[in-house]
Amino acid sequence: MEDLLFLREALKEAEKAFSYGEVPIGAVVVKDGQVISRAFNRKEFLQDPTAHAEILAIREASRKLNSWRLEGCTLYSTVEPCVMCAGAIIQSRVDRVVYSVPDPKFGGVESIFKILSDKRVNHRPEVLKLELPEALKLLKEFFKLLR
Amino acid sequence: MEDLLFLREALKEAEKAFSYGEVPIGAVVVKDGQVISRAFNRKEFLQDPTAHAEILAIREASRKLNSWRLEGCTLYSTVEPCVMCAGAIIQSRVDRVVYSVPDPKFGGVESIFKILSDKRVNHRPEVLKLELPEALKLLKEFFKLLR
Repeated sequence: MEDLLFLREALKEAEKAFSYGEVPIGAVVVKDGQVISRAFNRKEFLQDPTAHAEILAIREASRKLNSWRLEGCTLYSTVEPCVMCAGAIIQSRVDRVVYSVPDPKFGGVESIFKILSDKRVNHRPEVLKLELPEALKLLKEFFKLLR
Repeated sequence: MEDLLFLREALKEAEKAFSYGEVPIGAVVVKDGQVISRAFNRKEFLQDPTAHAEILAIREASRKLNSWRLEGCTLYSTVEPCVMCAGAIIQSRVDRVVYSVPDPKFGGVESIFKILSDKRVNHRPEVLKLELPEALKLLKEFFKLLR
């Protein structure tokens, strides 16, 4: 119930991305029941290939906590983190990851690589996949407009 | 020959990381025979889990070129890019990757995942592994001092 609430906060970020003409993906980081950072995909605006919502939210959470370790934190993303973002999740030691829409092209959680559940990796966050039809709808609308 | 020269530039960056007490890893991005960005691992200083040498070098190269697409660029790193950095390499469309020391803990090129050569991924940079004994020596020295 609380997870869905925070995933909806990530959706608000995805909607901002949409309004700026960016692929509509949003993320928030939550600690102790509070949103400590929020971000949307800004790859085109910043011309930065790493400026995915998840990376920006992780970096902002680290600034807020003044620590690269995000223990006790949950990352919510509207979309399955890509390989880069899944790697950043491991690097930041986030406890939990909640997301909705799979990414068949470069997903790093379930689609292409299963980075967050691989036994060879020394950190394995809890992963929860939640239905949020609006997140998928927003993406479909974006790519329809693009064509 | 030229590759070894640029890998040595990355080594200079790794030496800076060492002097700042960071895990000594360095990277440079080269385009048209020119170093366009250089960076060393600054994770502890910045308290940013994404501040690996490769990520910082990629971001700086994108700023320089004002483009998230690093086509025509080669990334040199003293160490095998981790899963996050390998993901960033894909995201940035770097043409070539040259590195030296494998990372058995979280390497994303040959050690844990083979992200850069996976046929399911829509970009496959050329990868070259080069011997640079000083890069490994520096890492060994760092971890010896840490103990």
